[in-house]
Amino acid sequence: MSTEPPSHYRHDPLQDHWIISAHERARRPTDRRGLGAFEARIHCPFCPGNEQETPPAIQTIPASAANLEASTWDLRVVPNKYPALSHGPSPERRTEGFYDVIPGYGAHEVVIETPHHVSHLADRPPEELGELLRTYRSRIVSLSANPDHQYVLVFKNHGTAAGASLAHPHSQIVAISVIPEVVATEVASSQKYFAARGRCLICDMLEHEIGLEKRIVAVNEDFVALCPFASRFPYELFVAPRQHGHDFTQTSDDQIESLARILGDVFAGLRRHLGDPAFNYILHTSPNPNGRSSEHAPSVEAIESCFHWHLEILPRLTQVAGFEWGTGFHINSKPAEDAAAELRG
Amino acid sequence: MSTEPPSHYRHDPLQDHWIISAHERARRPTDRRGLGAFEARIHCPFCPGNEQETPPAIQTIPASAANLEASTWDLRVVPNKYPALSHGPSPERRTEGFYDVIPGYGAHEVVIETPHHVSHLADRPPEELGELLRTYRSRIVSLSANPDHQYVLVFKNHGTAAGASLAHPHSQIVAISVIPEVVATEVASSQKYFAARGRCLICDMLEHEIGLEKRIVAVNEDFVALCPFASRFPYELFVAPRQHGHDFTQTSDDQIESLARILGDVFAGLRRHLGDPAFNYILHTSPNPNGRSSEHAPSVEAIESCFHWHLEILPRLTQVAGFEWGTGFHINSKPAEDAAAELRG
Repeated sequence: MSTEPPSHYRHDPLQDHWIISAHERARRPTDRRGLGAFEARIHCPFCPGNEQETPPAIQTIPASAANLEASTWDLRVVPNKYPALSHGPSPERRTEGFYDVIPGYGAHEVVIETPHHVSHLADRPPEELGELLRTYRSRIVSLSANPDHQYVLVFKNHGTAAGASLAHPHSQIVAISVIPEVVATEVASSQKYFAARGRCLICDMLEHEIGLEKRIVAVNEDFVALCPFASRFPYELFVAPRQHGHDFTQTSDDQIESLARILGDVFAGLRRHLGDPAFNYILHTSPNPNGRSSEHAPSVEAIESCFHWHLEILPRLTQVAGFEWGTGFHINSKPAEDAAAELRG
Repeated sequence: MSTEPPSHYRHDPLQDHWIISAHERARRPTDRRGLGAFEARIHCPFCPGNEQETPPAIQTIPASAANLEASTWDLRVVPNKYPALSHGPSPERRTEGFYDVIPGYGAHEVVIETPHHVSHLADRPPEELGELLRTYRSRIVSLSANPDHQYVLVFKNHGTAAGASLAHPHSQIVAISVIPEVVATEVASSQKYFAARGRCLICDMLEHEIGLEKRIVAVNEDFVALCPFASRFPYELFVAPRQHGHDFTQTSDDQIESLARILGDVFAGLRRHLGDPAFNYILHTSPNPNGRSSEHAPSVEAIESCFHWHLEILPRLTQVAGFEWGTGFHINSKPAEDAAAELRG
């Protein structure tokens, strides 16, 4: 642990948002060497044989029969070598001249999803997707033991347009000392809706959407995938359990299998219809129930009844432009109903 | 006017934001035909000789001596052929099943900045930049006569990574029937600061920054250009008048000249240090003082004393990725102090 924090949050007093200043991240490697290189097999720190190029693994799943020739492992979780957040000084807010600053306390891990440098989610068998989802579950549980981790965020960047700096399939897990703005907004909306109606906002929305059908992409016994009414991006997707649940880590193994199947369908639809689009996905689960209580954090009980976990998939076919940055309103030229019809295809 | 609105706002009840669903925009042309084509001279609806490909001009500035051989005009303002908003039904909120919708009322114009297909802002003489800024000023004044235009947004997208679909230098002006979220947040922060201290937030911030020097890129008698403390993007820039002013349209011709000079310096710095980066710029001026009053809109008097207009320049060297979409926190690997030092060069 160094006394100089490797990263810190900075507050913008005008736009009332925080950014993370992480100059160490500028040193991270990339395999982007121009058009086409993203998929090319150039030196990759995540490929089998290069394990010494990442920090020691936090978790390793030994190779299954199918991968034994390629690798000794199916999946590895390693600390991010160029973390956005790390376990430096405690996350106390302080001032810096005119402004507010918070040390960048937290953890930043990388899930190397497969030993294969090229392996699209649409091509992986449900068991492999299930293994990945169970890994997310166990890492969230483990990172949630630290009460200074108010939130554990799981996300994936696929393709250069989605911000991936390496092509080898990987996801990221970040434990954060503050409740992120996006999560706080979702919790607040859900609480407001619950207070007025005594029901969960997302439960009601799913019931409405399943009845209406037109924005549904796939449904199975446990999960529904749909294009949300106010999609910011063309072909945006929202995947949620049909039965109320606030916390992804409480998902059973059976439900994980069911989720893996519907995700397989969804990624197959994206691939069939759009080729291999860049995308981000983001797991929206509840804040850490063990998180240190603060004036800003909603109570655990309130969240249990009102918050409904979900996965957001954002294909990145268009650029966010001046209009969006100036207003906060995304312009989407593909209505959610049309997108859903095409992806159901 | 058609009865079917060509676009509409849709509200997301969970993330409590609005998007604009504008399927007509999917039909807009692009000159993007792969790498390098962006700068290539392929068929362009904005070039001289192709005036009939845009709707009739709202404003035309006749050619100055320097442009007489190339064109009959220096600059044209035309309605956007594929508008995000238009003068359809009145902007009344209604419900659509589970959700809220507002017709996409407003105006969307394009400023064709120059007859030259390739003309970088860094290469244009201050008089030409001044002409462009005076055009923004007069279009905002004109569009502000309509009380249903609560806000007039001026922005520019340069380069494919910044969302430009055509390479010919152009800006956009959008008149909007609601106060955009980004503007509402800035007004609210400024009001809160003013209420506590009796001073303008940005006036105080500029004084602090000018004293500190390390984030200043350029200063002249009327304006200051700096890299904001909590920059979301590497080399983000903030340009504001040193003397308090809430409304860009009240900028005098002398001040416009001064602004043109500092912008020339800033764009030269970006070009010198970064080549020809994609960027967005966005003018943040006050809401329309003639806008129909609503419960949400702050009073004109309150805005005059607390809001301070400014221009935001966002180089687009990095992609917004899953972490940003999942948290709302941008990760910036280039500290504002380093960016400013490099751009001062």
